[in-house]
Amino acid sequence: MTQEDLRSLFRTVGDGSGLSHTNTYYEEELALAFRNRGMPLEGLRYDITPTGMHYLLIHFDIPDADADSWKLDIGGLVGNPLSLSMSDIRERPKVTMPVTMECAGNGRARLNPRPVSQPWLLEAIGTAEWTGTPLRGILEDAGIDSSAVELVFTGRDEGVQGGEVQLYQRSLTIEDSMRDEVMLVYEMNGAPLEPQHGYPLRLIVPGWYGMTSVKWLENIEAVAEHFTGYQMDQTYRYKTSPDDPGVPVSTMRVRALMLPPGVPEFMTRTRLLDSGDVTLSGKAWAGRLDVTQVEVSTDDGMSWHKAELGKQVGRFAWRNWSYDWNAKPGTHFLSVRATDEEGNVQPTAQPWTMQGMGNNLVQRVEVIVR
Amino acid sequence: MTQEDLRSLFRTVGDGSGLSHTNTYYEEELALAFRNRGMPLEGLRYDITPTGMHYLLIHFDIPDADADSWKLDIGGLVGNPLSLSMSDIRERPKVTMPVTMECAGNGRARLNPRPVSQPWLLEAIGTAEWTGTPLRGILEDAGIDSSAVELVFTGRDEGVQGGEVQLYQRSLTIEDSMRDEVMLVYEMNGAPLEPQHGYPLRLIVPGWYGMTSVKWLENIEAVAEHFTGYQMDQTYRYKTSPDDPGVPVSTMRVRALMLPPGVPEFMTRTRLLDSGDVTLSGKAWAGRLDVTQVEVSTDDGMSWHKAELGKQVGRFAWRNWSYDWNAKPGTHFLSVRATDEEGNVQPTAQPWTMQGMGNNLVQRVEVIVR
Repeated sequence: MTQEDLRSLFRTVGDGSGLSHTNTYYEEELALAFRNRGMPLEGLRYDITPTGMHYLLIHFDIPDADADSWKLDIGGLVGNPLSLSMSDIRERPKVTMPVTMECAGNGRARLNPRPVSQPWLLEAIGTAEWTGTPLRGILEDAGIDSSAVELVFTGRDEGVQGGEVQLYQRSLTIEDSMRDEVMLVYEMNGAPLEPQHGYPLRLIVPGWYGMTSVKWLENIEAVAEHFTGYQMDQTYRYKTSPDDPGVPVSTMRVRALMLPPGVPEFMTRTRLLDSGDVTLSGKAWAGRLDVTQVEVSTDDGMSWHKAELGKQVGRFAWRNWSYDWNAKPGTHFLSVRATDEEGNVQPTAQPWTMQGMGNNLVQRVEVIVR
Repeated sequence: MTQEDLRSLFRTVGDGSGLSHTNTYYEEELALAFRNRGMPLEGLRYDITPTGMHYLLIHFDIPDADADSWKLDIGGLVGNPLSLSMSDIRERPKVTMPVTMECAGNGRARLNPRPVSQPWLLEAIGTAEWTGTPLRGILEDAGIDSSAVELVFTGRDEGVQGGEVQLYQRSLTIEDSMRDEVMLVYEMNGAPLEPQHGYPLRLIVPGWYGMTSVKWLENIEAVAEHFTGYQMDQTYRYKTSPDDPGVPVSTMRVRALMLPPGVPEFMTRTRLLDSGDVTLSGKAWAGRLDVTQVEVSTDDGMSWHKAELGKQVGRFAWRNWSYDWNAKPGTHFLSVRATDEEGNVQPTAQPWTMQGMGNNLVQRVEVIVR
């Protein structure tokens, strides 16, 4: 069966092949919303997200996997190809690090027109304590050849996307791969990875959107040219039109989120709050950069007020912020925006792109104060 | 602020107040889909669902809770009111039991017209090993008065539904509450409950749809009359029209689900499978009843063939089934249906009700065999 045959057999929607002004793809989008998982925003209360509350995006299926027989092969342009068992990896130097991770498509369904793919609103985030071993040590043992420019990371999950049958694969430059903070991990929040988080082994690339942190990692190959696989050159691009090759999505853009105050209405999630003094709070992050300012608006973006910056959970994990508000009866729209050390500020107008990547448009929380 | 004021302030949709022939409530439904969580269907591979893959339905917010200061109060029509700390509860007789749980609204978004509420497709299921103490022992210590007819269970999660500010509350008859299998639990799959699953304490009522297993349980009150709270008399009803009072939803209806074979297309979730022999498999359950038969159709419901019944995971947990299929090239629609010991069979036409409760319509899996 040729690729053309496959393309004709599968209805393919999503990933830049379609935009929706109405809700044509309602059922497909719902199915993705129920497979994948957002962090309920009250999860912003926790510095470390409980495992079952962390966001999840699984491209294909969660594969069947057994740690006892799992092998990680490192090959291609290396002097000393390796085939490591999970015991081999667990015996290596062990590090634990809190890392904030966000899906590159977070905010996609807030765009208009809406790119058709996994329809995230705001919840594709989480911070976990990951335990594993630095990738660099393994790469040094394998002896990456000087002719290599990238590493290709291959996971076990397999499926069809854009009419191509594929294993999930992403690449990273040698330079980015050798950074201190890049890890191969086998534990999350002090317990073995659950299947949906990449059991028994995954990559973690702190500061980057989640697509780079390949789950169910089985193979690392050093290659001499830029890898042009589907998940590199067809998707995860900032594109302005279907024909625009775009630029690759990489580190996380600056963003703050607010723990919605008060209590929710079941269906609309509008908040009900008693009048008086209330402390608004949440988290902010900016990829590899520091968050230098967080501002809150309680009048739907008419005016902005500096929030107090609190504890940063880790070098690559989110930072707390808080703001004291005297809530007066009526309907209010609350927003929060962050600024990073390079002066990037979250936009108040949608940063529209063809695939709906990196939409860090400010959050807007409707609150009815009584 | 009166209830009428509240009703006028909140847009209220859902729970029988609206039906959708189009996708008017797209954004509200998506927001619920991302707060709440389905079990990806490959989770049917596991007898015990990993904690982070188990379905979740949270009516309001996940409350902030601290086990050290948590109290469970048992009062109302009892001879000996109790106020138990978590230590008190952990010192009581300890039991662990696998229990299959499903949301009463599972399948709602497969109905046409679609009742507007949490838009589940098929994934609102899971089986966990719950550890706690039998409720009956505590009730015996409290001495339920003979004038009591129901117990009202109150959780800490608070919000607005149908224009009423409320704590989440459900009741159960004394008889149902005294059954051996009803538990107060503090562990799930061998670890303390995560916040989203009811930390530090929840009720588990095996065999019933999940709405009865109240999370973040703070209060049990014995009452002399049927409790008419919102979650009893306004929702969780099998109703045929807005004016029909309907009948209460209780135990889970018979259902089987199939682990979709092959690999998925990213967006449509259509499956790609190599031709040849393949074993189809999955799980089946029927509330408190036994599953007596599972049948598979590989021709879109034209003919049905008996599957082999496998291990039952527990008295109140799902049962394995499997069916060997010789897959020939082409497009196929696979279905599975279960029958319980009382002769109830899953329907192949939608069992439509106003609130979309208990929709056990058979699953339909599109597979392209190459």
